Amino acid sequence: MKAINAIRMLGMSQINEANSGHPGVVLGAAPIIHELFKNHLRITPSHSDWCNRDRFVLACGHASSMLYATLHLAGFKITIDDLKKFRKWGSLTPGHPEYKHTDGVDATSGPLGQGIAMAVGMAISEKFIAARYNKENYQLFDHYTYVICGDGDLQEGVTQEAISFAGHNGLEKLIVLYDSNDIQLDGDISLAQSELTKLKYQSMNWDYQLVEDGNDLTALNNAINNAKKSVKPSIIEVKTVIGYGSELAGKADCHGAPMGEEKTKFIKETLAWDLDDFEVSDEIYEEYKVIKEKGDILYEEGLALFKSYKKDYPELFLELTEEIEVPLVEFANDVDEATRVSNGKIIAELSKKIPFLIGGSADLTKSTKVKGADGDFTASTPTGRNINFGVREHAMAAIANGLTLSNMKAFTGGFFVFSDYMKPAMRMASLMKIPTTFVFTHDSIAVGEDGPTHQPIEQLTGLRAIPNMNVIRPANANETASAWKIAVDSKTTPTCLVLTRQNLLNNENSTYEKVLKGAYVISPEKEELHGILLACGSEVNLAISAQEKLLNENIDVRVVSIPSIYMFEQQSEEYKQSLLADVPTLAIEMATAYEYYKYTKDVMNITTFGASAPGGVVVYKYGFHTDNVVEKFKIVYEKRSKTTD
Amino acid sequence: MKAINAIRMLGMSQINEANSGHPGVVLGAAPIIHELFKNHLRITPSHSDWCNRDRFVLACGHASSMLYATLHLAGFKITIDDLKKFRKWGSLTPGHPEYKHTDGVDATSGPLGQGIAMAVGMAISEKFIAARYNKENYQLFDHYTYVICGDGDLQEGVTQEAISFAGHNGLEKLIVLYDSNDIQLDGDISLAQSELTKLKYQSMNWDYQLVEDGNDLTALNNAINNAKKSVKPSIIEVKTVIGYGSELAGKADCHGAPMGEEKTKFIKETLAWDLDDFEVSDEIYEEYKVIKEKGDILYEEGLALFKSYKKDYPELFLELTEEIEVPLVEFANDVDEATRVSNGKIIAELSKKIPFLIGGSADLTKSTKVKGADGDFTASTPTGRNINFGVREHAMAAIANGLTLSNMKAFTGGFFVFSDYMKPAMRMASLMKIPTTFVFTHDSIAVGEDGPTHQPIEQLTGLRAIPNMNVIRPANANETASAWKIAVDSKTTPTCLVLTRQNLLNNENSTYEKVLKGAYVISPEKEELHGILLACGSEVNLAISAQEKLLNENIDVRVVSIPSIYMFEQQSEEYKQSLLADVPTLAIEMATAYEYYKYTKDVMNITTFGASAPGGVVVYKYGFHTDNVVEKFKIVYEKRSKTTD
Repeated sequence: MKAINAIRMLGMSQINEANSGHPGVVLGAAPIIHELFKNHLRITPSHSDWCNRDRFVLACGHASSMLYATLHLAGFKITIDDLKKFRKWGSLTPGHPEYKHTDGVDATSGPLGQGIAMAVGMAISEKFIAARYNKENYQLFDHYTYVICGDGDLQEGVTQEAISFAGHNGLEKLIVLYDSNDIQLDGDISLAQSELTKLKYQSMNWDYQLVEDGNDLTALNNAINNAKKSVKPSIIEVKTVIGYGSELAGKADCHGAPMGEEKTKFIKETLAWDLDDFEVSDEIYEEYKVIKEKGDILYEEGLALFKSYKKDYPELFLELTEEIEVPLVEFANDVDEATRVSNGKIIAELSKKIPFLIGGSADLTKSTKVKGADGDFTASTPTGRNINFGVREHAMAAIANGLTLSNMKAFTGGFFVFSDYMKPAMRMASLMKIPTTFVFTHDSIAVGEDGPTHQPIEQLTGLRAIPNMNVIRPANANETASAWKIAVDSKTTPTCLVLTRQNLLNNENSTYEKVLKGAYVISPEKEELHGILLACGSEVNLAISAQEKLLNENIDVRVVSIPSIYMFEQQSEEYKQSLLADVPTLAIEMATAYEYYKYTKDVMNITTFGASAPGGVVVYKYGFHTDNVVEKFKIVYEKRSKTTD
Repeated sequence: MKAINAIRMLGMSQINEANSGHPGVVLGAAPIIHELFKNHLRITPSHSDWCNRDRFVLACGHASSMLYATLHLAGFKITIDDLKKFRKWGSLTPGHPEYKHTDGVDATSGPLGQGIAMAVGMAISEKFIAARYNKENYQLFDHYTYVICGDGDLQEGVTQEAISFAGHNGLEKLIVLYDSNDIQLDGDISLAQSELTKLKYQSMNWDYQLVEDGNDLTALNNAINNAKKSVKPSIIEVKTVIGYGSELAGKADCHGAPMGEEKTKFIKETLAWDLDDFEVSDEIYEEYKVIKEKGDILYEEGLALFKSYKKDYPELFLELTEEIEVPLVEFANDVDEATRVSNGKIIAELSKKIPFLIGGSADLTKSTKVKGADGDFTASTPTGRNINFGVREHAMAAIANGLTLSNMKAFTGGFFVFSDYMKPAMRMASLMKIPTTFVFTHDSIAVGEDGPTHQPIEQLTGLRAIPNMNVIRPANANETASAWKIAVDSKTTPTCLVLTRQNLLNNENSTYEKVLKGAYVISPEKEELHGILLACGSEVNLAISAQEKLLNENIDVRVVSIPSIYMFEQQSEEYKQSLLADVPTLAIEMATAYEYYKYTKDVMNITTFGASAPGGVVVYKYGFHTDNVVEKFKIVYEKRSKTTD
């Protein structure tokens, strides 16, 4: 119990020092994380990125101080000094665990619901990679994915989507430890929930176990051992007491407010803890050495196995280890097809070269053409790279993040308007700096008959506003191919591909090198630059046809294609200014398009919802046709002439 | 069966004529909607807004042609001619059902998952209003809320949140008819799901029934009758055949593509249908007259009851019928408190005057101070106006929309960063033109220690981009009070209130009349206008302190508070120009702030994620302190001077 109390007290010390944090869960759930780390998790601080390590996601990220304390005891790169800087500027121990920021943290967590869904992605990755690469005598991959979660996590819809999905796909190496303390921020869980937990999870093909006393390590140990043997994903409901050992035990008041000196004294007495704040005895460190010792041995064994595998399966070994040159899929310049169609072809091509390219659609494969290779991923065909997510957009995005966290090249597919459902997980990708690819089709009012519920308006603006999110809206097949190469090459930035339902003519000027700059001249002015039409996606060809008509009226404009504002913003000032000269400029986008005001005062956009009618009709009625663009540009042009007069 | 086939064939005719739509569900689920409308729904086309009518939500909105056909037969204001214009420009019969656009449509639907969750809100409204106003011999309110949904709806996380919530709150008058045809867009449901449906819904306190043959009207009738008597919400799983009667029966191919002439001929033969396209026999119209006849009688009875109630309970009658003057809650000008705190006081005040003000938080009541009056709404205390949504943000927003659709003044509460989870439902409010109020607190990096997962950056931009969404970010208590009055007065626009965790000093210039304009001079220039600082929320006081310092350097600026870009954009050009003169202007926002580029080239914003540290530290480190604002403004000012030189 000493190590458990060390976790508890290190947690209290951090929270008190920061005067901020969540003590309740730390005091209650410490035995769970202790049992898991000490006796089950196959990890080692010597190699915290070991590819066959067990994964651990702290879904209830507000218990961060508990994780940091445990990682410290286990020998990861978190010192007592780091713990003292909990929730302070620039520390390694931020308010919620952050991936790649802190050694030993497998996923950023905090926003409830994301954790379990990401863990599902990690478990798919293990199942896929084991099925593809393990051979007789070569059990290269056989790790588990563990989650600790709370009541709130399970109330989230995204979790329920992920649970249903995981049960269906028989992800037997996924083990969720449910810190069931019956208390939420607002009070007793009975304020908001009354479910038959066992029945609910069993109905979704999960194995359910109950540990009646969270302090009963033997029971915990047995439950985890049983879960490891289960042929289904497992949830272990562990009854705990929030704020265990404190005078607020069992009360919601200890959820989110620091204990402070007095209450901490009380805890120390209850737990018979006689060490100082931030003090840990050698005895406890000694107890935790086993993690590194066992982990190092397993790591070395795995390494040896891997070396021998190299000899017996040189090609598979190469697949596993080589850095892949992502090809640029080529299209004829006269191709006239929807970018969603080009996209389908590109995925098929890339899948041949990239064994880790995996993904699928949220029950829209036929519409989006977003489909993985090698058949469907299922419990019985785990080498399939097409994932049928069902109508579970949010979980799809979070699961894809979990796949990416496990070094897969994951992609998702859906209608652009329903990116709304996925946004919280997309933000997580940006925040974790992981390159998940989110493919969206049906990108504008051109969707047509399905009407305003299915026509995106504000989505481009909303997604472009996410820090570190590369939103690419290609104008044709060549741009789509370039966008895919950029997405798959990306190391630290997720990508959104925003594609059309309607045909778009290809353009030979749309080279990869140009697309990489975010914006470029797709159709130059003839002689003298009178103005610029700035657009992306389906509006680029519209701009080009307006350009022709304007030239007939002796107005000589340049058309700039801007598939990615994100990449354009990273260019030099010189490049930006060379592209967007100080001439009348009209930006054209069938969307809110706030973001273009940075480049020009004149934006042709949509600030109302769409309408139900054939796509061409809607687009025309909303003014996105050549004559109207010409008209609108001439107004801009003449306004400027007057100002200059 | 003739009426059922009439629905089927009117559906086919519409879809064929439009060459767009979803025939599969129409052919399969027609008996369900028929049985429901003909024998159960208490509605009348004479008064489609009858307050005690049964509510009906077609969660699978892609079955719109089926609903339009049924509403036509039932005598609602949809003519055969309207059906012929299905999915055409300007028609009454758009691709998915739209609230207030088409007579008899109780809610916009199409985005899967929204329907059931909105229906939950409607059922709460019934339970609340019945409990508050029904008296002995006065059963004023006793209507049911019915939903038809498909597999996809139930896979959505928001639905699962709503189901769990409805079971917990014993919403016994909610009846979901589950069109269970085992087929999704991508194929058999077994591609994506394998659940024990009965167990799952029973585990969440729902009553479950199975109708094994969707064409068995007696079984359907019995099941609905049982559901009406149940003390729990009910789900009736009705096994149907997608594309029933067609050569594609039971196949995914008939989900989303029109049948066309040949296949329709086949259906006509199978169903022994001998009428022309869009033709309905008198016999069928005759059969459906019962809906109006029964409905009219019930309506008149209800009206009579209501008149008599007026005499016996004049005060309650008044409550139910009077147009309420929404008060402006007053604050002292020296109040220095977080706008979330002012907000809590305002809700408490308004609740005294407005009996239909109802809402709550997603397990963040203590943090957001968003709490309804009169205790908790529960199965046993249905007059409570505080709803404990649990950690179910998305369902919270959709449920609130359902409440608003039932004439309640509904509000929600949560952290601003988690508005992401609610976005799809918030968009629905904007699209339906209903005035739900979404309250958010913890509105910026000033959140502090909780770190980047909890610090909104792009959310303001994303929400401001939604058409018909009034995002108000008040700078102080007075602005918050004004914002609340605007929100509750609103008839056709939902409102987001974006509030702080940290204290803000009140300002006497922040009058209701000024806030109503969206932007106004909160602190005027002294003598000569040298420039403008434009800000909202917590940045307004920052701007005011920078204004003072600038004046010391003889730079005389005006501070404009812009709590709502949405309202500001509706002002006259004169007003806009009077406020934002052509002088050096710096917009200041601790967020992405793309939208300010419309007003000025110079925006002090944040385009990265936040950080974990005490709020004041984070805000300082990100440059949002007086000296830096002064510095930044001077750069803008000097740049302009040079240009003018």
